[in-house]
Amino acid sequence: MTGIGDDAAVLRIPPGHEMLVTTDFSIENVHFRREWHSPQVVGWRCLTRGLSDIAAMGGEPQAAFLSLAVGEDVPQRWVDGFVGGLLDLSRKFKVPLAGGDTAQSVAGIQADIVVVGSVPRGKAVLRSGAEAGESIYVTGDLGGSAAALARLFGGQPVSRKQVRHFRPMARVAVGRWLRTGGVASAMIDVSDGLSTDLEHICSESGVGAEIEAESIPRGPGNTAQSRVELKYALHGGDDYELLFTSSGAVPSKIAGVPVTRIGQTTKKPGMVLINSKGKARKLKAEGWQHFGG
Amino acid sequence: MTGIGDDAAVLRIPPGHEMLVTTDFSIENVHFRREWHSPQVVGWRCLTRGLSDIAAMGGEPQAAFLSLAVGEDVPQRWVDGFVGGLLDLSRKFKVPLAGGDTAQSVAGIQADIVVVGSVPRGKAVLRSGAEAGESIYVTGDLGGSAAALARLFGGQPVSRKQVRHFRPMARVAVGRWLRTGGVASAMIDVSDGLSTDLEHICSESGVGAEIEAESIPRGPGNTAQSRVELKYALHGGDDYELLFTSSGAVPSKIAGVPVTRIGQTTKKPGMVLINSKGKARKLKAEGWQHFGG
Repeated sequence: MTGIGDDAAVLRIPPGHEMLVTTDFSIENVHFRREWHSPQVVGWRCLTRGLSDIAAMGGEPQAAFLSLAVGEDVPQRWVDGFVGGLLDLSRKFKVPLAGGDTAQSVAGIQADIVVVGSVPRGKAVLRSGAEAGESIYVTGDLGGSAAALARLFGGQPVSRKQVRHFRPMARVAVGRWLRTGGVASAMIDVSDGLSTDLEHICSESGVGAEIEAESIPRGPGNTAQSRVELKYALHGGDDYELLFTSSGAVPSKIAGVPVTRIGQTTKKPGMVLINSKGKARKLKAEGWQHFGG
Repeated sequence: MTGIGDDAAVLRIPPGHEMLVTTDFSIENVHFRREWHSPQVVGWRCLTRGLSDIAAMGGEPQAAFLSLAVGEDVPQRWVDGFVGGLLDLSRKFKVPLAGGDTAQSVAGIQADIVVVGSVPRGKAVLRSGAEAGESIYVTGDLGGSAAALARLFGGQPVSRKQVRHFRPMARVAVGRWLRTGGVASAMIDVSDGLSTDLEHICSESGVGAEIEAESIPRGPGNTAQSRVELKYALHGGDDYELLFTSSGAVPSKIAGVPVTRIGQTTKKPGMVLINSKGKARKLKAEGWQHFGG
């Protein structure tokens, strides 16, 4: 690979593979706040967004590119910490930072992360592959990131257990396993919130969904035994878990990550939430809005 | 190609080819001003930056990705115009806009363009391939964009002849020709200014350069017969011409674009400018700084 230093980076994609490309902005006071998030955390979260998109296609991340604009109000120390946090994660996933762009901004921090990946030809797991009558699964647990954010907003302390918010981990190994086994028919990462991301699968696949509220794995709350409120698990973003559909057998753990069945796809369009008493109500896409909104 | 609408875009790269990736920011009040540049012009220039990087590798642009953040102070009409200008150029080069990201910004406009290209394996033209004793060439003419910018800064009218500033054209066909013929030993696009971009070739290739001031093709000035001042041709950015070295025969026109020999590489490091009387002075990299600087 010819990396930083030429007009463009040169990458080799394995023979018989297609390439995947995803881009994601991380903007100060929209996606993060300097008073809440250390530069290392912002860099880590920035790269996670891209890796998670590649994971959701069942792909192999190959290289990352960072475009970073900072204003004069941003000390070099902050930039160093940001790049350090991003490189920590890039080493963990063996995804080199292969290029990008730097620019002066009028004020604040704007980062755009590009992750390039590969997948065997025709094997990318799309959002559009679900059929009616399949089971719906989610990895890990949901809502932890949004619950932590709500506490930050409220000026409350946030437990270190909420690593989901500060150091989320893209489910690359799970995505790869689901793709190689042909297990997942459709997949997306939970970046905007379960309700919104499930809605994407439903509309792209032309199916509906029934979700059992009690089955949704909820992230840890702020005390040892507590769990986050259902609303965060339903609508909270930035957990970077995988949401997928399957008609086959799915183990309860993949690549060390718990996998939970939370419902099924239906022929009837629309999304329905079923409570512990079996009562159904309409589930609307109310995914987390970036907190600048 | 699976484009906008999934977690990542899926692209096919021709067999036996490597992929090229480049990213470039276009930031309001740094790279453009809304009072000087129409949204169509900003969109066109944004994509040109990426296409020109691919051209400078001798590559074939395959797809573009746009990450666009806009503040509430930016009307939807502006965004539509911007995307319209970008799509005008994308159609001209048959490079589809295949994905990207949109976000709210705190204020103003931040656009990051990613262009993905391809090149036969091992054939990308790098900055590092020049050897001493080769000729140095530039396509088209230089300085037109910076001269227009200087007039905008001075509140003076800018001639429509300065299309170089408003509608620059990436030299993709020239770059392809130079690569397929094995003609260019090293290449870069003139985006930061001749002196700065030549310095990149020199330092990456481990050579020096002698440039004949009189040979540098200067862009049209603001009257019919005039030419821009030498300083703009030497240090002005955003012309998006190609600067390359070659030890072989180079035609005076490639793909309809004039090509001019402006000097030669030397064993002795450093850059030298020779005037019409044969007098030499040191040439420093003083490339154009973005005008927010």
